[in-house]
Amino acid sequence: MTTPVLKLGIPAGSLQEATGELFRKAGYKISFPSRSYYPTIDDPEIHCTLIRAQEIARYVQDGSLDCGLTGHDWVVENDAKVTELAELVFSKVSRKPVRWVLAVPTESPIQTPKDLQGKRIATEVVNITRRWLASHGVTANVEFSWGATEVKPPRLADAIVEVTETGSSLRANNLRIVCDILTSTTRFIANDNAAVDPWKRRKMDDLILMLRGAMAAENKVGLMMNVRKADLEKVLAVLPAMLKPTISGLSDPNWADVMAILDEDAVRRLIPDLKRSGASGIVEFPLTKIID
Amino acid sequence: MTTPVLKLGIPAGSLQEATGELFRKAGYKISFPSRSYYPTIDDPEIHCTLIRAQEIARYVQDGSLDCGLTGHDWVVENDAKVTELAELVFSKVSRKPVRWVLAVPTESPIQTPKDLQGKRIATEVVNITRRWLASHGVTANVEFSWGATEVKPPRLADAIVEVTETGSSLRANNLRIVCDILTSTTRFIANDNAAVDPWKRRKMDDLILMLRGAMAAENKVGLMMNVRKADLEKVLAVLPAMLKPTISGLSDPNWADVMAILDEDAVRRLIPDLKRSGASGIVEFPLTKIID
Amino acid sequence: MTTPVLKLGIPAGSLQEATGELFRKAGYKISFPSRSYYPTIDDPEIHCTLIRAQEIARYVQDGSLDCGLTGHDWVVENDAKVTELAELVFSKVSRKPVRWVLAVPTESPIQTPKDLQGKRIATEVVNITRRWLASHGVTANVEFSWGATEVKPPRLADAIVEVTETGSSLRANNLRIVCDILTSTTRFIANDNAAVDPWKRRKMDDLILMLRGAMAAENKVGLMMNVRKADLEKVLAVLPAMLKPTISGLSDPNWADVMAILDEDAVRRLIPDLKRSGASGIVEFPLTKIID
Amino acid sequence: MTTPVLKLGIPAGSLQEATGELFRKAGYKISFPSRSYYPTIDDPEIHCTLIRAQEIARYVQDGSLDCGLTGHDWVVENDAKVTELAELVFSKVSRKPVRWVLAVPTESPIQTPKDLQGKRIATEVVNITRRWLASHGVTANVEFSWGATEVKPPRLADAIVEVTETGSSLRANNLRIVCDILTSTTRFIANDNAAVDPWKRRKMDDLILMLRGAMAAENKVGLMMNVRKADLEKVLAVLPAMLKPTISGLSDPNWADVMAILDEDAVRRLIPDLKRSGASGIVEFPLTKIID
Amino acid sequence: MTTPVLKLGIPAGSLQEATGELFRKAGYKISFPSRSYYPTIDDPEIHCTLIRAQEIARYVQDGSLDCGLTGHDWVVENDAKVTELAELVFSKVSRKPVRWVLAVPTESPIQTPKDLQGKRIATEVVNITRRWLASHGVTANVEFSWGATEVKPPRLADAIVEVTETGSSLRANNLRIVCDILTSTTRFIANDNAAVDPWKRRKMDDLILMLRGAMAAENKVGLMMNVRKADLEKVLAVLPAMLKPTISGLSDPNWADVMAILDEDAVRRLIPDLKRSGASGIVEFPLTKIID
Amino acid sequence: MTTPVLKLGIPAGSLQEATGELFRKAGYKISFPSRSYYPTIDDPEIHCTLIRAQEIARYVQDGSLDCGLTGHDWVVENDAKVTELAELVFSKVSRKPVRWVLAVPTESPIQTPKDLQGKRIATEVVNITRRWLASHGVTANVEFSWGATEVKPPRLADAIVEVTETGSSLRANNLRIVCDILTSTTRFIANDNAAVDPWKRRKMDDLILMLRGAMAAENKVGLMMNVRKADLEKVLAVLPAMLKPTISGLSDPNWADVMAILDEDAVRRLIPDLKRSGASGIVEFPLTKIID
Repeated sequence: MTTPVLKLGIPAGSLQEATGELFRKAGYKISFPSRSYYPTIDDPEIHCTLIRAQEIARYVQDGSLDCGLTGHDWVVENDAKVTELAELVFSKVSRKPVRWVLAVPTESPIQTPKDLQGKRIATEVVNITRRWLASHGVTANVEFSWGATEVKPPRLADAIVEVTETGSSLRANNLRIVCDILTSTTRFIANDNAAVDPWKRRKMDDLILMLRGAMAAENKVGLMMNVRKADLEKVLAVLPAMLKPTISGLSDPNWADVMAILDEDAVRRLIPDLKRSGASGIVEFPLTKIID
Repeated sequence: MTTPVLKLGIPAGSLQEATGELFRKAGYKISFPSRSYYPTIDDPEIHCTLIRAQEIARYVQDGSLDCGLTGHDWVVENDAKVTELAELVFSKVSRKPVRWVLAVPTESPIQTPKDLQGKRIATEVVNITRRWLASHGVTANVEFSWGATEVKPPRLADAIVEVTETGSSLRANNLRIVCDILTSTTRFIANDNAAVDPWKRRKMDDLILMLRGAMAAENKVGLMMNVRKADLEKVLAVLPAMLKPTISGLSDPNWADVMAILDEDAVRRLIPDLKRSGASGIVEFPLTKIID
Repeated sequence: MTTPVLKLGIPAGSLQEATGELFRKAGYKISFPSRSYYPTIDDPEIHCTLIRAQEIARYVQDGSLDCGLTGHDWVVENDAKVTELAELVFSKVSRKPVRWVLAVPTESPIQTPKDLQGKRIATEVVNITRRWLASHGVTANVEFSWGATEVKPPRLADAIVEVTETGSSLRANNLRIVCDILTSTTRFIANDNAAVDPWKRRKMDDLILMLRGAMAAENKVGLMMNVRKADLEKVLAVLPAMLKPTISGLSDPNWADVMAILDEDAVRRLIPDLKRSGASGIVEFPLTKIID
Repeated sequence: MTTPVLKLGIPAGSLQEATGELFRKAGYKISFPSRSYYPTIDDPEIHCTLIRAQEIARYVQDGSLDCGLTGHDWVVENDAKVTELAELVFSKVSRKPVRWVLAVPTESPIQTPKDLQGKRIATEVVNITRRWLASHGVTANVEFSWGATEVKPPRLADAIVEVTETGSSLRANNLRIVCDILTSTTRFIANDNAAVDPWKRRKMDDLILMLRGAMAAENKVGLMMNVRKADLEKVLAVLPAMLKPTISGLSDPNWADVMAILDEDAVRRLIPDLKRSGASGIVEFPLTKIID
Repeated sequence: MTTPVLKLGIPAGSLQEATGELFRKAGYKISFPSRSYYPTIDDPEIHCTLIRAQEIARYVQDGSLDCGLTGHDWVVENDAKVTELAELVFSKVSRKPVRWVLAVPTESPIQTPKDLQGKRIATEVVNITRRWLASHGVTANVEFSWGATEVKPPRLADAIVEVTETGSSLRANNLRIVCDILTSTTRFIANDNAAVDPWKRRKMDDLILMLRGAMAAENKVGLMMNVRKADLEKVLAVLPAMLKPTISGLSDPNWADVMAILDEDAVRRLIPDLKRSGASGIVEFPLTKIID
Repeated sequence: MTTPVLKLGIPAGSLQEATGELFRKAGYKISFPSRSYYPTIDDPEIHCTLIRAQEIARYVQDGSLDCGLTGHDWVVENDAKVTELAELVFSKVSRKPVRWVLAVPTESPIQTPKDLQGKRIATEVVNITRRWLASHGVTANVEFSWGATEVKPPRLADAIVEVTETGSSLRANNLRIVCDILTSTTRFIANDNAAVDPWKRRKMDDLILMLRGAMAAENKVGLMMNVRKADLEKVLAVLPAMLKPTISGLSDPNWADVMAILDEDAVRRLIPDLKRSGASGIVEFPLTKIID
């Protein structure tokens, strides 16, 4: 009997490095051999394929892949019938959702969707744009753009539908946002059959548990401190309520050891207060995974 | 009255650097400011736009651009109605024509176009592929591939139509070429109206003359040598017939100075013979343009 | 009502990266956008400005900045009236104090300050040098040096006052140290008014607490070990006296868990002894902050 | 009286960086000044010399060095009389033993050692090869190869004895492995006299203890979790038997805190099971040394 | 008797590479050993010293150097008494004169020099600024700026005097130019005594001749062409009048060979006309020096 | 009938890039594919192999190669019976002959070869050293050194035989040269049979002719100038005697055009004199080959 295998699609391009980093933090040794599209991973039950984010949903839908990571936007663009198992918000690159917006030159007369009637619109998401136009009862000429979409107006297009995070690239090209079309984050999607196959589902659930454990530990740190029992209540009042700290007794019966998990950027606000409340020997240490 | 301007499309991506280099050799100071899609050029009558090669023909056809450099393949894929003014064969990157071929896994049963009936074909040139299939009376499922097409068979596609120069990338992915679909080189194309506008046509012709002058000088060198008049005939017999050498008299009436333009890689074959025929003081010097 | 803001000067140049690193360890996300002089920091109550170390004291004194990090030397050179809140000894770059020394060519007859009478002295610290000469009753020609001061003697200067850490650059330029002029470390300085403004002072004190917590953790590690209660006294005798270890009971009443914070380079000396004294399961783990 | 000193040889070349990294993890600040062959180390009782791995055994044997790290292969090649104190298996570069193999062109008729009679064999390990041939009663022409040994057959050699890890370089050069000659790992070797000198032996033993502590921590992590006492048995059953976890009581008498040291790549398999068994607040943290 | 030597100052910093390049084109092998301030040059009669441009005039005036290259601005700032032997306009870095301008925040009320009364002005050229203010009868507080001057207004200065080429850095910092203070180019300056010493003067004149020959060849090319004698007048009419072309006879008495030196960027305009006028076999070749 | 082929050895390592550059200047397109030991060359009659300089002579002697470039030192070290066809002195790397010297610590008592009796000598050229010692009637222990030979004395060797160009590496290691052992330059060597094979010999002679043409052009430039016939004698007197300049008549019968080939570093001395002698319109242009 052969080993069962989970066929997993990894998005090539801008998300690739961040995805690799997340898997590594989750405890998987993944690497991307140069010139190969088959990342190696130290789990013989997982087979990775590197594919453009735009195409992953298509191949998950038809079963060429069991599951994959891709943007919600490309699931919609491909109109793919797949099961979404988790939303993954990780790493610098994708921490904030991306926005697909309709943008026009600053001085363009276009102010509302209706003004697009008969215009040329350049975009990478032709299907999303056409459906959105249809929902507004507008007919326009939607052209697939191979790249550098934001430099096309006004000479090569009247409007564009383009992805943006901060809007700075649009402003730099003298474009104005008319309205939002779609907001998207990274998703872990599964083929509908794979999602109900017991072995594959458990394999995917365990993988997602670990990915989430690694994401939860990003920007979190551990804090240990010694507290006189008399001060314990005051010290605990300073700590945020959401995560219950671990309190252990010390040899000296008048003292306790408190350990808490905190947001890295809350620490600098809390430490001065903890010290004022009587904590001493405060030590901060790094974490790599948190599973609550 | 405003300066007339020629709107010129420069292909972004793999051809960009080679194109810039060719323009520089032709005497134009062109540069590509980072993050801008408008290359600067020291001719106020030319306005450059950097666009993906795939899209140039489309924008030249509709008059957004007057002219541009792009591959013959993308003119065909876009089914663009444009005027072709010159074929440009330049630089390492594009010296050889590129071939679009139909390729399948080495062990695939597909041997002829007929065998593609009902199969999945991944390609960047969807229109070329569909027309070619139609010409063979075959119906197949042609899917647009966003990249890394050659790694898709056999799991994500049955066959691909992909560009190749040496075939090595295909072999590395265990693919076999079934047949050629299209051969392509770089072309200088013009909008049909621009091609008959007197000012624009002369501007384009002068530009093409200089580009050709620079291309002609690639891999050519100049050779000067002193020859006793008695040996002149023998020496001239060694030189290739196609380019007439320039012969000037020297102060010493028994000697002449011969200057010839030669292929760089012929020089090493010719010099030993020239020396044996009586040439002396042979000096090789570099050239930057040749307009005959 | 607007948010109060602390205007903080960060030294540009050689200390910049080390300062950024220290802030990051202290829990502040600080970054230096290329071509901007306003580092971003994830605390809306702090506004950073990147300024040459030489100028920070000047701008703190006149209130353009509330506070800043700079060398003691530049406070003295600028004769700045500011309040010094902390001495910061951090990172490779500034762990050791820097010395400003008087140096002359090895073979120079100059042996004492008196011998400088009437000589040419090149230096970046013109004021420090002049005051020092005056205190020795010596008159000399002090010239501001824009850089590469150590290569000027003997042709462009008779002596220099220059900064040195190991003296190797002086030796390489064939110079001999005559005497020390000033020793300097990095300081956290505040404008005199800001130092007594309650909100600003507390903000600065908290910031300094965190910076010190990060510095204290450099080269420190945590050590956990299991110790049979019978061996506890022997094991504790091995540990340095200065930091009290945390001792907690285990489920097994015969064993205790000891946690200690130690100098990283003491660990390799202590571990063999700890093991010989009966400690087992010794585990070393990294720390990022220590606030005692 | 002068400080006693341990003269330690560090292998230059491919193992150098990995060795430096291991020493740093073990708590020694070692650095390799460019253009110097004397690495600096922050222990005045150790004096390092950077030497080619091939030569270390020779200099340890004759007492020029007290000890050193080198491959077992070079000890054998030099036929060196030294004391081996430890086998070190560390870092990416040397985690797996290296194999010296006899290889021939794929299509060569050579199938057994006997077929080498009278052939040309190129290798860096001339002595090992000659002794191995002698043990098979074969006479062949063994030539010292200065490098690139694997490209020599079939034109410059009939066979080679070469080092390999995965065999991929041999396959790429169209070579076939006939048989193994020697397997080798990195060793800590000592001069026979140094090994029995009390001060040197204790110094070496302590150093080896720390190196082993650092190696043990590679790919290990710490896991802390809260467990209801009722679930303790179930949770402990999930953890691997080999390392006893540390269990401490919490303030809440119904809960315990469990800390375990685990293989990094086991964690992703164990965490889902630990959670199912009732563990909560699972936190993973990094370790730098483990001495059991 | 010892070799006489010319002591030459080379500007360190932004002009260094361009200066080195110019010397190399002029036929001098100059190189900048890392960490040395004495560039090597293959002329034993020249001794180079690398010094900041700001200081060269000072050291040329006092005779520490015989001559040097520096900006006119620094000659004025130092109020140096030196002899200017040549203006050098070379290379990308310094082809255009630099402008020192008075700049203020865009929204500042300062519109004329008079408005500066009592303001803080930051600048690297304190003396130039003070003299200029005095000439306008204005008293202001001029502070030496160690760098990043353009980011100081409005918080650290009311106005600045700063160097600019295109004004883009000023605009990026939201500054407005009020007026020009000084325009500057690179100069070859000599000590007054060195300028009248016969050996040194001839040495400097020869050096300047070669530097000018190299500068003249920048952006110039040679053009050779064959012209039927009947067309000679027409062809010569196309060539610019300023440089007389060289006309030589060929063996064929009806043809002549014309060689001309032309601006590189005129060539692309002239070649089409030359061809139309009857020139054939037009060949362009590079030049490295032109001395007319 | 198959194409005859010349098997050519190219030295890997420090000479590789310089050799490639020389071949390119000689008109051969040679390139070094990464990870291959078979450089590609655009002459189907030449087959290149990249081999360590130390081994080339051995393989040329036994006919595995027809010819190769290597140092004279390695011919001697291998005691190889080969035919030397040319000495090649090219490029920065090998323009000066290299010297193998005997060196000892500065303070060593060794002053003459005789003092080496019974000492340890480390070297890469074991055979050369042994023969040289024998010629002096000295017996010593010569050990093969795998590298970093110059750091071995005094602890790992009493003396070394090492290669040096400027002696600076020896001085930096506190070594003193006792005497020279061998001087070496790069040679073109041939197998004895290949040297008398007519096709191979002509192929090698033509190749050497081109290599020499490229070497002759290094550091040479062409100079063209217009000279009034009345000044011709004066101008010719300035030009060095060794290379006869080419003098051609101009259309204007009073003027002549003089072309000369000169050492690049003589030009800067000659041009001022040429100008003073009446030459005008002096133009310098680059050369790539000179075959006299």
